[in-house]
Amino acid sequence: MSRPANQPAASRLQLEYARVRAYSLELVRGLSAEDCQLQSMPDASPLKWHLAHTTWFFETFVLAALPQPPKVVDPSYKVLFNSYYVGVGERHLRAERGLLSRPTLDEVLHYRKQVDQYMQQALADIPQGSTLATLVTLGLQHEQQHQELMLTDLKHHFACNPLLPAWRAEAPEQQSSASTAQVYAYRRFAGGLCDTGASDAPFSYDNEGPRHRVWLEPFLLGERNVSNGDFIAFINDGGYQRPELWLSDGWDWASQRQAQAPLYWQQDHEQRWHAFTLAGLQPLNLDAAVCHLSLYEADAYARWAGARLPTEAEWEHAARTAPDLPGLFNQVWQWTNSAYLPYPGYQRAAGAVGEYNGKFMINQMVLRGSSCATPAGHSRPSYRNFFPPAAQWQFSGLRLARDV
Amino acid sequence: MSRPANQPAASRLQLEYARVRAYSLELVRGLSAEDCQLQSMPDASPLKWHLAHTTWFFETFVLAALPQPPKVVDPSYKVLFNSYYVGVGERHLRAERGLLSRPTLDEVLHYRKQVDQYMQQALADIPQGSTLATLVTLGLQHEQQHQELMLTDLKHHFACNPLLPAWRAEAPEQQSSASTAQVYAYRRFAGGLCDTGASDAPFSYDNEGPRHRVWLEPFLLGERNVSNGDFIAFINDGGYQRPELWLSDGWDWASQRQAQAPLYWQQDHEQRWHAFTLAGLQPLNLDAAVCHLSLYEADAYARWAGARLPTEAEWEHAARTAPDLPGLFNQVWQWTNSAYLPYPGYQRAAGAVGEYNGKFMINQMVLRGSSCATPAGHSRPSYRNFFPPAAQWQFSGLRLARDV
Amino acid sequence: MSRPANQPAASRLQLEYARVRAYSLELVRGLSAEDCQLQSMPDASPLKWHLAHTTWFFETFVLAALPQPPKVVDPSYKVLFNSYYVGVGERHLRAERGLLSRPTLDEVLHYRKQVDQYMQQALADIPQGSTLATLVTLGLQHEQQHQELMLTDLKHHFACNPLLPAWRAEAPEQQSSASTAQVYAYRRFAGGLCDTGASDAPFSYDNEGPRHRVWLEPFLLGERNVSNGDFIAFINDGGYQRPELWLSDGWDWASQRQAQAPLYWQQDHEQRWHAFTLAGLQPLNLDAAVCHLSLYEADAYARWAGARLPTEAEWEHAARTAPDLPGLFNQVWQWTNSAYLPYPGYQRAAGAVGEYNGKFMINQMVLRGSSCATPAGHSRPSYRNFFPPAAQWQFSGLRLARDV
Amino acid sequence: MSRPANQPAASRLQLEYARVRAYSLELVRGLSAEDCQLQSMPDASPLKWHLAHTTWFFETFVLAALPQPPKVVDPSYKVLFNSYYVGVGERHLRAERGLLSRPTLDEVLHYRKQVDQYMQQALADIPQGSTLATLVTLGLQHEQQHQELMLTDLKHHFACNPLLPAWRAEAPEQQSSASTAQVYAYRRFAGGLCDTGASDAPFSYDNEGPRHRVWLEPFLLGERNVSNGDFIAFINDGGYQRPELWLSDGWDWASQRQAQAPLYWQQDHEQRWHAFTLAGLQPLNLDAAVCHLSLYEADAYARWAGARLPTEAEWEHAARTAPDLPGLFNQVWQWTNSAYLPYPGYQRAAGAVGEYNGKFMINQMVLRGSSCATPAGHSRPSYRNFFPPAAQWQFSGLRLARDV
Repeated sequence: MSRPANQPAASRLQLEYARVRAYSLELVRGLSAEDCQLQSMPDASPLKWHLAHTTWFFETFVLAALPQPPKVVDPSYKVLFNSYYVGVGERHLRAERGLLSRPTLDEVLHYRKQVDQYMQQALADIPQGSTLATLVTLGLQHEQQHQELMLTDLKHHFACNPLLPAWRAEAPEQQSSASTAQVYAYRRFAGGLCDTGASDAPFSYDNEGPRHRVWLEPFLLGERNVSNGDFIAFINDGGYQRPELWLSDGWDWASQRQAQAPLYWQQDHEQRWHAFTLAGLQPLNLDAAVCHLSLYEADAYARWAGARLPTEAEWEHAARTAPDLPGLFNQVWQWTNSAYLPYPGYQRAAGAVGEYNGKFMINQMVLRGSSCATPAGHSRPSYRNFFPPAAQWQFSGLRLARDV
Repeated sequence: MSRPANQPAASRLQLEYARVRAYSLELVRGLSAEDCQLQSMPDASPLKWHLAHTTWFFETFVLAALPQPPKVVDPSYKVLFNSYYVGVGERHLRAERGLLSRPTLDEVLHYRKQVDQYMQQALADIPQGSTLATLVTLGLQHEQQHQELMLTDLKHHFACNPLLPAWRAEAPEQQSSASTAQVYAYRRFAGGLCDTGASDAPFSYDNEGPRHRVWLEPFLLGERNVSNGDFIAFINDGGYQRPELWLSDGWDWASQRQAQAPLYWQQDHEQRWHAFTLAGLQPLNLDAAVCHLSLYEADAYARWAGARLPTEAEWEHAARTAPDLPGLFNQVWQWTNSAYLPYPGYQRAAGAVGEYNGKFMINQMVLRGSSCATPAGHSRPSYRNFFPPAAQWQFSGLRLARDV
Repeated sequence: MSRPANQPAASRLQLEYARVRAYSLELVRGLSAEDCQLQSMPDASPLKWHLAHTTWFFETFVLAALPQPPKVVDPSYKVLFNSYYVGVGERHLRAERGLLSRPTLDEVLHYRKQVDQYMQQALADIPQGSTLATLVTLGLQHEQQHQELMLTDLKHHFACNPLLPAWRAEAPEQQSSASTAQVYAYRRFAGGLCDTGASDAPFSYDNEGPRHRVWLEPFLLGERNVSNGDFIAFINDGGYQRPELWLSDGWDWASQRQAQAPLYWQQDHEQRWHAFTLAGLQPLNLDAAVCHLSLYEADAYARWAGARLPTEAEWEHAARTAPDLPGLFNQVWQWTNSAYLPYPGYQRAAGAVGEYNGKFMINQMVLRGSSCATPAGHSRPSYRNFFPPAAQWQFSGLRLARDV
Repeated sequence: MSRPANQPAASRLQLEYARVRAYSLELVRGLSAEDCQLQSMPDASPLKWHLAHTTWFFETFVLAALPQPPKVVDPSYKVLFNSYYVGVGERHLRAERGLLSRPTLDEVLHYRKQVDQYMQQALADIPQGSTLATLVTLGLQHEQQHQELMLTDLKHHFACNPLLPAWRAEAPEQQSSASTAQVYAYRRFAGGLCDTGASDAPFSYDNEGPRHRVWLEPFLLGERNVSNGDFIAFINDGGYQRPELWLSDGWDWASQRQAQAPLYWQQDHEQRWHAFTLAGLQPLNLDAAVCHLSLYEADAYARWAGARLPTEAEWEHAARTAPDLPGLFNQVWQWTNSAYLPYPGYQRAAGAVGEYNGKFMINQMVLRGSSCATPAGHSRPSYRNFFPPAAQWQFSGLRLARDV
């Protein structure tokens, strides 16, 4: 069927905008306003807040930058839904996001609808490759990042309810990825002077570049991610009770919380392991990738296995040259032993958007790959995810590395 | 119109039950499920939880004690909506009540309806004066206590939202009670050997008795509660900056939080005082009773005024012999300088209901009277309210006393 | 032998001054400068600090008030050795008293000697009954109070050293006071309208008065203090595991620290109880009064025993009318169920000395009697000791009471 | 004069042992036992503990490994003076080191003397290049590391005393290193594929190797360390009030402690800067290297100056190829923007000594160079010092770097 002549073809960016924005709504399908208001810890935001904050991004950085900006939907949202952008004014306290019963979920959904209308109108006029088009793409990537956090945070919120509610009937984190019978095999990489980091196309965050050279010694990288079955062997071998396997801070961390297993695991009265998942409490699938590990646990496991965590440069080199390694993407984020620090030549972008990545470059470790909660189209070899070493609530696991 | 012969007259208890239970619903009229889930601090529970917990009381202590108890509405509620009754099983953590998106508000309202039906049926058969009838009355008093807490807690929850939402158009705590021009006058009481504490009829909590004798020296008690206007004079005289006016713990408390005014007060850019109220942010009414004071602030004010707080025995003696003193009830709870401790001969009731009062008899101070948030029919001269001396979120003020 | 005519007889106050001051030095005999600098928690001060602070009291409140005050020994001591007297200037932080290696113990001893010389000269001229004489007596009582704290604090300091050092060869807290075979007997008191509180002579703190009337119902008071043997029966009966025996705050306190026994108790590998004492680790004497209880533990024990704690008025009435009750004094401080609050008609003294007692009248419970660590001459029926209900490091035990 | 034929020449290691051990005693010359017991925070140990712990190292790792080990001086020291070696048994809690009045300083000095005698005897027989000889060298380097900490910690301890005591008459941290008039100049380095890390000779810690290749882009490194005068310009330009200059965690850190200047700085009533030094409070020397910065402050300063911190590989390359850069060593430790992580191929040593470095490789940033408190002979280009980014009490400053 032909399109009337006076209607322009929806641009690629318009379609992408619609697709990404719709997926956020898909994630909250079936959830109540009460579900979307939960905040179980300062680090895990309510879903309503995620929905509003990602919208605020477009309103603040795109719509407000238009030659004739539309009317602000609600002036109070500027403060309420700012996250950490000190440059655009006062922030509502992170730990108190769960205390916002107003605006309601309905009002936030209305806010999304309003901004989406303005955006689609604006997108009709924004030239490809322009600064604004770049900001729109950044906003969509930003929204995808929050889509993963929505699932990650929701899982934590629900885990605090003794009723252990389910989000969906199927648990994405329970997908098999390895046979427990399988020996953990490694692939050899020769190393040398390698290029690493993003080249510009099609999109990357500023922290993924500049592309630069690193020298790598030869190394081995695991063919797959470590599985639940693998990790149970570590537990059964007393892994959580042996200080020599742990980093000093890790041992303190584990002792203080009397850690005995990954987050969300529990044993029934017959000592069978279960895990709380996005589909509620489930018997643990031994063949799925182990998940919700802190770096401390991942590092202790690696030491126990006579191995180590890879560096992020090793991981990226392997992902580029051997993309057939199973589970690089869409299973679990893989902890590396690289600190989240700027690449040589990195410059923070100017202005509020520039606050995005650079100022977090301390006290965090890099994770590579992507997880079962990462939306389609948000995985790439140069992607640098980062969290403090004690963080467990992410879909975080590991892949082993060794010296040759 | 006449009632058919085969339908019994609704008993007094059935009517009272219906009246009290309906008022809880009246309090949440106009609030959303999101509003009812808010929990701004461990001490302040969500309104949904109050609605469910008061219902749980009837299900657990009345319905379950019937010869043929009805089916439990939902077994999980037994844990979720227990508050501090260690005797009836595990409790859901107080600080995490705000993390219960399930059951929903609708489910809780359904729970109320179901229990109300069972209760009305049961009340038709419960003889007046029976143990069960006494428990029903206790349950209604318990619900009234929570009705006050619902407003008190809601005010705190809403105060954490930068939008400062209003519950109703009129602010009950802004009712005038005194002219600021008025000198603070005292009435003289001769004291002597006085009876104090509740006699049984018609109802009192166990902690209000046994009735017993106390010796009182002659004393003066203020004709009215201290007003906002009075308290501003204290502030303007540097009351918050003068350690000699404060108890040592009070000075530490005030220093640590850099207290400068009662909770919920703020000054605009022209230094005019406003207060957050149940009707949102309002210019402060100088003629209303000062409210949301900790005992520390009340005590410092009294010392500054050359007076002191009354003891609870003085207060009760005055309330019985001079009930015309303005504002004894339904303005603000009045801090006394009496610790919340058992009266001579007090015995804890046996069983779970016995956990109700006795075990809190430490680290708390007594407040007397009642407040603008106290439901009708819940005020009496022997009533002992109690909170830790640092608590501010109650509708708490003071009335001065002096030695003769 | 006769005294030369030109030498005045040492006054009673001069002798008392010398006696009390010498006893402080006796307490540190055999301790090193290192021992005297220990501070194991903010509440427990170094012995060097006690030695200096008690001296500071005389220099500040007596010597400085003389018509011709002597030269201040060291101006810096004014700040360093003030405790909580906000009125006389900035205080060195309580928690950091253990960080004062300068002045040295030798310098503090020199300070004492210097002030003692000035004081003895001054005492020769101070008329009996004068304000200054009253302040000297107050200073001596103050020093005696610190003498008890010196032993109490030293015990806590030493308990933190894995070597468990001993202060003396004999442990005062191990003196037998009851046969474990002995049934716990009570004496009956008729009560009625009784006088309580100190009359002036010979000395009392302001908080012990004014003397006033109280009405007492008839009551029973234990013939002796509860013994270690008694308390073991409570432990063996699961006393620390039964929430119904505890105050709510007490249960939280015990749960949080996983309390299983009084402070300083430990079991050897054959389950025999030992206690750390002022003579090091010792097998527990079952016949000694139980010691180092928090009020929470004392209260739970009393409830378990079907009894209660006495009020302070009951205790004082008994101590005045039945002074033959064993162990009222010089065994253990006996927790009462009275909050530390002002007596009717109590007025804080003016000025810095007036800060002494009144401003602590909140969040504390009264203990009566005296302990094995109380210096001779510092016990009296009206004495009101006071500590928060969680305090364990004092020599605190209990005596049971019951309603008739 | 000639040495008798039957007396062997003191070996190089015997002489070195004597020299290093004597310097620890030199550091405490003039300090009292009370001074040596101070512990002002968990991270800063008492000097007595340093003296004992360094001795414990030789007794545990050298003497106990001899074919015929001498008698242990005191078995309790094994626990008391272990620091973090989980492998050799229970540790006395770090935060409670200041609570050890026993053993006394005299006993610890005796312990040193005794171990020194045993060691000198043993050294006569230990072959050069043997495992034991290596451990002795490690022990001496370990002691030198603690010698720096002794001064660093003592400064912190003394700073908590309002009397602000001095250790010596001259303040090493006040030595001029730059003229404030001087523009901050850079030197250019071409980078490329460089070797970095220690080769074995004569000594290095395991964390300094293995020697390996890194690729460096061309860079500029400052000719000198940043001075006090430079840093005052940052303060005066509002550096502590501008969030855009700070890492996010750094801004939180500064806000929480209301940081306005480096640790130990204060202004007098005429706004002149003074610093507490090892010689007491002193007017700030503008020409000395700025000191006692956290990484957060160093990083914010660099951003303000349009520069950045160097990486540790850049620093080491510069130090090897341009050793004439002023102040690389013996002024201040220079923060780098490198996380403290293992070099490629790094393996933890086996056993307790292996706990030494590897297990701390998380949550810390690398500092390079050495400071005015570093003992002679303990500086080298490959040396990796490491502390958490918030640490201020070290003699830590910075040198700027820039991209070309």
